[in-house]
Amino acid sequence: MRDYKTSYKILKSSLEEKGVNVSKVEKKLKALKIETPSWGYSDSGTRFAIFKQKGAAKNVKEKIQDAAEVHKVTGICPSIALHIPWDVTDNWNALLEYSLSLGIKPGAINPNLFQDPDYKLGSLCNPDGKVRKKAINHVLECIDIAKALKSKDISLWLGDGTNYPGQDDMRERKHRLEDSLKEIYDNLQDDMRILIEYKFFEPAFYNTEIADWGMAYNLCMKLGNRAMVLVDLGHHALGTNIEQIVAYLLDEGKLGGFHFNNKKYADDDLTVGSINPYEFFLIFNELVSAEEDGIKADIAYMIDQCHNLKPKIEEMIQSVENIQKTYAKALIVDRKSLKKFQQDEDIIMAEKIITEAFETDITPLLFKVREEMGVPLDPLEFFRDSGYLEKIQIQR
Amino acid sequence: MRDYKTSYKILKSSLEEKGVNVSKVEKKLKALKIETPSWGYSDSGTRFAIFKQKGAAKNVKEKIQDAAEVHKVTGICPSIALHIPWDVTDNWNALLEYSLSLGIKPGAINPNLFQDPDYKLGSLCNPDGKVRKKAINHVLECIDIAKALKSKDISLWLGDGTNYPGQDDMRERKHRLEDSLKEIYDNLQDDMRILIEYKFFEPAFYNTEIADWGMAYNLCMKLGNRAMVLVDLGHHALGTNIEQIVAYLLDEGKLGGFHFNNKKYADDDLTVGSINPYEFFLIFNELVSAEEDGIKADIAYMIDQCHNLKPKIEEMIQSVENIQKTYAKALIVDRKSLKKFQQDEDIIMAEKIITEAFETDITPLLFKVREEMGVPLDPLEFFRDSGYLEKIQIQR
Amino acid sequence: MRDYKTSYKILKSSLEEKGVNVSKVEKKLKALKIETPSWGYSDSGTRFAIFKQKGAAKNVKEKIQDAAEVHKVTGICPSIALHIPWDVTDNWNALLEYSLSLGIKPGAINPNLFQDPDYKLGSLCNPDGKVRKKAINHVLECIDIAKALKSKDISLWLGDGTNYPGQDDMRERKHRLEDSLKEIYDNLQDDMRILIEYKFFEPAFYNTEIADWGMAYNLCMKLGNRAMVLVDLGHHALGTNIEQIVAYLLDEGKLGGFHFNNKKYADDDLTVGSINPYEFFLIFNELVSAEEDGIKADIAYMIDQCHNLKPKIEEMIQSVENIQKTYAKALIVDRKSLKKFQQDEDIIMAEKIITEAFETDITPLLFKVREEMGVPLDPLEFFRDSGYLEKIQIQR
Amino acid sequence: MRDYKTSYKILKSSLEEKGVNVSKVEKKLKALKIETPSWGYSDSGTRFAIFKQKGAAKNVKEKIQDAAEVHKVTGICPSIALHIPWDVTDNWNALLEYSLSLGIKPGAINPNLFQDPDYKLGSLCNPDGKVRKKAINHVLECIDIAKALKSKDISLWLGDGTNYPGQDDMRERKHRLEDSLKEIYDNLQDDMRILIEYKFFEPAFYNTEIADWGMAYNLCMKLGNRAMVLVDLGHHALGTNIEQIVAYLLDEGKLGGFHFNNKKYADDDLTVGSINPYEFFLIFNELVSAEEDGIKADIAYMIDQCHNLKPKIEEMIQSVENIQKTYAKALIVDRKSLKKFQQDEDIIMAEKIITEAFETDITPLLFKVREEMGVPLDPLEFFRDSGYLEKIQIQR
Repeated sequence: MRDYKTSYKILKSSLEEKGVNVSKVEKKLKALKIETPSWGYSDSGTRFAIFKQKGAAKNVKEKIQDAAEVHKVTGICPSIALHIPWDVTDNWNALLEYSLSLGIKPGAINPNLFQDPDYKLGSLCNPDGKVRKKAINHVLECIDIAKALKSKDISLWLGDGTNYPGQDDMRERKHRLEDSLKEIYDNLQDDMRILIEYKFFEPAFYNTEIADWGMAYNLCMKLGNRAMVLVDLGHHALGTNIEQIVAYLLDEGKLGGFHFNNKKYADDDLTVGSINPYEFFLIFNELVSAEEDGIKADIAYMIDQCHNLKPKIEEMIQSVENIQKTYAKALIVDRKSLKKFQQDEDIIMAEKIITEAFETDITPLLFKVREEMGVPLDPLEFFRDSGYLEKIQIQR
Repeated sequence: MRDYKTSYKILKSSLEEKGVNVSKVEKKLKALKIETPSWGYSDSGTRFAIFKQKGAAKNVKEKIQDAAEVHKVTGICPSIALHIPWDVTDNWNALLEYSLSLGIKPGAINPNLFQDPDYKLGSLCNPDGKVRKKAINHVLECIDIAKALKSKDISLWLGDGTNYPGQDDMRERKHRLEDSLKEIYDNLQDDMRILIEYKFFEPAFYNTEIADWGMAYNLCMKLGNRAMVLVDLGHHALGTNIEQIVAYLLDEGKLGGFHFNNKKYADDDLTVGSINPYEFFLIFNELVSAEEDGIKADIAYMIDQCHNLKPKIEEMIQSVENIQKTYAKALIVDRKSLKKFQQDEDIIMAEKIITEAFETDITPLLFKVREEMGVPLDPLEFFRDSGYLEKIQIQR
Repeated sequence: MRDYKTSYKILKSSLEEKGVNVSKVEKKLKALKIETPSWGYSDSGTRFAIFKQKGAAKNVKEKIQDAAEVHKVTGICPSIALHIPWDVTDNWNALLEYSLSLGIKPGAINPNLFQDPDYKLGSLCNPDGKVRKKAINHVLECIDIAKALKSKDISLWLGDGTNYPGQDDMRERKHRLEDSLKEIYDNLQDDMRILIEYKFFEPAFYNTEIADWGMAYNLCMKLGNRAMVLVDLGHHALGTNIEQIVAYLLDEGKLGGFHFNNKKYADDDLTVGSINPYEFFLIFNELVSAEEDGIKADIAYMIDQCHNLKPKIEEMIQSVENIQKTYAKALIVDRKSLKKFQQDEDIIMAEKIITEAFETDITPLLFKVREEMGVPLDPLEFFRDSGYLEKIQIQR
Repeated sequence: MRDYKTSYKILKSSLEEKGVNVSKVEKKLKALKIETPSWGYSDSGTRFAIFKQKGAAKNVKEKIQDAAEVHKVTGICPSIALHIPWDVTDNWNALLEYSLSLGIKPGAINPNLFQDPDYKLGSLCNPDGKVRKKAINHVLECIDIAKALKSKDISLWLGDGTNYPGQDDMRERKHRLEDSLKEIYDNLQDDMRILIEYKFFEPAFYNTEIADWGMAYNLCMKLGNRAMVLVDLGHHALGTNIEQIVAYLLDEGKLGGFHFNNKKYADDDLTVGSINPYEFFLIFNELVSAEEDGIKADIAYMIDQCHNLKPKIEEMIQSVENIQKTYAKALIVDRKSLKKFQQDEDIIMAEKIITEAFETDITPLLFKVREEMGVPLDPLEFFRDSGYLEKIQIQR
């Protein structure tokens, strides 16, 4: 497996035959940056049970250690998303230094607007103005934390919604949401962004305030340039064409980032690419296509999964590998032929251009890139052999 | 059943106890206008079979006759939506006169952008500029027809989409759509509107160009004030909270109309209110709530169903009755108490206000209104007894 | 509201006109028995948060007190389902006596096969034989508890499943399940039943071992007469025609019970009848229809909801009221006319028979029945006025 | 592309390293037989439009010619499914001879129980005994045709269902279905099978008589050994784990065949493997896994798609290639390691065994097999170059 040179040569020449600029592809692969979430390193579960894992990170420093380990074996995960108050510390400067000393930058700051008992009937949309104020203040506090950590993105997911018809006035909730966000937005630094996430349902079961991309998009339009839509791959109704939404937001200049994961049913938070890898490829295909068409976008690629059954750090590494592999496949699509077949209305051949890229065994190219980046060819295997897990299981 | 006076008295006094202004409710019920679709009077089916009905309307005049009959027995269906080219005639003035002579006004004009062989790969989004031009011209022709018929609404449903990944470029299709619609919009008369419909899927099975309310809304925002969103109740992913979308569009001033029907699975086009009457009530609840909060809206209430199994005219009458009944229930919601319970965060009582209105047997009030309008108390029974169906079965 | 006599007389005579035997309906309503779940009285939540309620029951005795209160105000909830180990006690005889002293019988015993860390990869289907044995033993212990409490039903819900393709062998898991259940079944007392629940997904997100009624049914067929299917209303794919499954199982003599609740999206565990009351009515319609056709069935009507936002006891009372109301509506369906219209292939009139029953305001009849049963006409209001909640909030 | 020898050598040695018996895999690939459907060669569409294709087969002989062409270029499609009455002829012997002369055997005979006006309210479940009799007789006629053509499978898909609550009695429809099928089953030849298909919905929109695998399975159990379940990949609720159902039916010895296609939303009838190729692979993975575990099954692999947009014959060839490719990938799964990792509860590595097979570029092996079978390496390209399409466009 490790002697990939022959396979690489065959792959390279077959790609070049199709007009793919392989060295450009490799360069882009090296430039990919994926942010891992602090909460992916600590225990999580379903409403039925949380199965604790030995060695799971218990505090923000341990989470950063784990993130650093993932970065070490993959080379493309230099930042960690933080969740407030789960990752709160009394000395943000010290935390920043600690983090940077491990080669990890703090990434998006995620306010928690769903767990406090006061948020039972909503946070930014709560019928009670005092609760709304509290929620706004929490986000403002997160902005301050972001400043302290030199983070640029506030990543906002809102569980707000209702469980029963009549429970609250949907138009009033919409107004409260708009007002609350306005106040938050006005407090952003000039170089900061707020990424607004939408979700089909859960934890609210009748209506959710930001239920789809349209509601998130419209909020962003009203707020301004620094409000962007965040797409979580598990937050759509079954059947939704997510890649179309991605293409749409790219075209409108309003795609701010992703929460990567995968689902079969609802917001299952499984390993990205594990249930429908072709759909994930088609999403990256739109990202690459837009970029090649000259659309400038600043997209935060973030993982947001629940590692309930698989070992947490291993699942994170597996996820990063899936993303990298999928991006690579999207990069080798023969776009010139694709365009031609589309213009010729030759559906079968146009589709074939897409599937051929997806079906290409891209491993040799990934090996090449990893070797040149000085990271292990097989990050997961390397991690397993490294003894890191055993070490933290003893230490923690 | 016909001696409804006692029941009416009990109902009225119980409603007035709750602060409902019954005479205002009755006035509003009399003012309700529902447009029936010409294509609902002619044979339709699934892709598996079309079961022809004896006497089904074969041309636009027969469709208008049937619509007039529905208006006659219900009193609230004074207009008919037309579909071009199905309802094409060589003398629009004569048709207008004929229609008016039967007490029916031509309503929304519906272009057909899905049936011509040229539209196989799309109409307004077709990769071929000549086909797009043809599609645009067809809509412009519909605008001319609307002028001739003094209709004010162009009701645009687009089947455009693709069946396979790679088949076409989704961003380019979006641009073509925006360009085509711009050209159409610029040709609208000042007092005309274009109602833009969205649909989750079908007949396209991979992506649909206007797939959800967000895409329709955004198109309307770009076009201008006379472009409004049309909500078809069968065009959403399963589980979608339609009443929230309705409330949202009302709040944004962008709700232009409805295509009423009901679904259990996909775009089943069943009788409105037949599968989930509570959901339908909740939709009307938002309409009434918005109106009582002072939101001005000009909403075209249109039926769009496939009467595959039930007798066509009877199903239309049944649908109109369902709409009227549901509107009546929404009108008697005790909004003052509702607001109070919402503010008190008393979910159970707030919900109860809603369900009590829904569960009210509103029939006596409908009888009263019908009697005062001079239409039969039981429109369906009246129609059955009228001999109209037997007559057209012989004539046609 | 309380002077319902006039309304009752009108309702009664209109029902009798349709051939409904009102006194038989009232008798049946008095005979309805609904079991409430012990876990519905204690704190619950989503995976995101558990919002604690003041006074929520903390142990089995408090749960039984609450259940007794619900029975007191409704008159139709004489038993409580227990969950092991949540409701475990060291003296089952004492618990039985305590329960009976409050007028409450222990009902179905629910083993917990999802929470123990050993069950991370499954219980009865776990790859590890020792874990399977542990799970079997837990159910056998539940059978012993049932014996001690004179309960007759073991209600089995299994979270078993996998999260990822390849995680385990689905056929082997099926075999393990069949073997485990065989061992359990062989240990049932002759007058005991095991009710087997199915669920579309959650907490497993790739496959669930008993994913649909067909898998539960087939298990029951292999086990024997005392294994019956339990239908939880929230455990189906969106769109599933649940009433057809109910009719099917009734026809096969394999419907053992219900877990009542309602959903809009997934297993939302909302108040029964709160999202789609018509669907709930259609389910009861099949139950009544089967009974009137002479199908004998011993069906355990149980509530299984998560009272996350509404006050727990109040939501339970509301749920019981919804069930009673819906049953009443199903009882007044004019089945003779229905049959006739079905035979005449008169879809509209057949449907109308169904909707007329659903739309009937049945409240006066419920008042009559409650008065004769010596329970409050408005159970919820009575409970609110009773001071029970304030009392337990202080005591507990 | 055609000089695949080096790639083949690398692939072979890497597979053999994993313990895959490559020559056995190749043998199995050569033995694969896929049946193409006569109706896939003639014009089809959605309820909105049928876009005619030049040269599309107009009668059964032309359909057989096209099927023969597909077999010629793929080598693995030696039979054609027929649809009665669409493919009816007055001389079945002559048709059989004609078919065999082109190297094609008649395959499954498909009765049409959905198109005749008499079937408006159902066929085998129709309330009218005369219509049921007519439907039964139609299937008996199909059995006679099967005898004449030496076909062994009757493939039964039933559109029967209702559109509205109350329309008909669901238990009675179930009884009628069971009775009708009993009569049909009793008329099967001893060496014939009836394959019973289920479908979630469409063309019925409220209930469908055979709505899921459980209903089809239970019917088959009641009928006897020669009744088997047919799985159409487009006939499930969204999210359904189809591979689990396949594994289940294999384990029960009741899987009789497939209708291959793919869907994103409902019964979209797209090219098999085009929307979710991983799911399709997981289905084949269960088939191969069962076979390797010694489960004997006689499974009819049939394509059932609507070639609405793509050229019909080309889409058929593409579909056959997709099936062959997917089967090949399932055959190279390293089952020994898979079992080991499953026993070790190493989810990540077990999953990796599965994904590695899926991600393998299997093309060189397919080239090898095709070369040895004497068919073109690239069937689609060969067909395009062959001039067949141009020929029939002129001739027909």
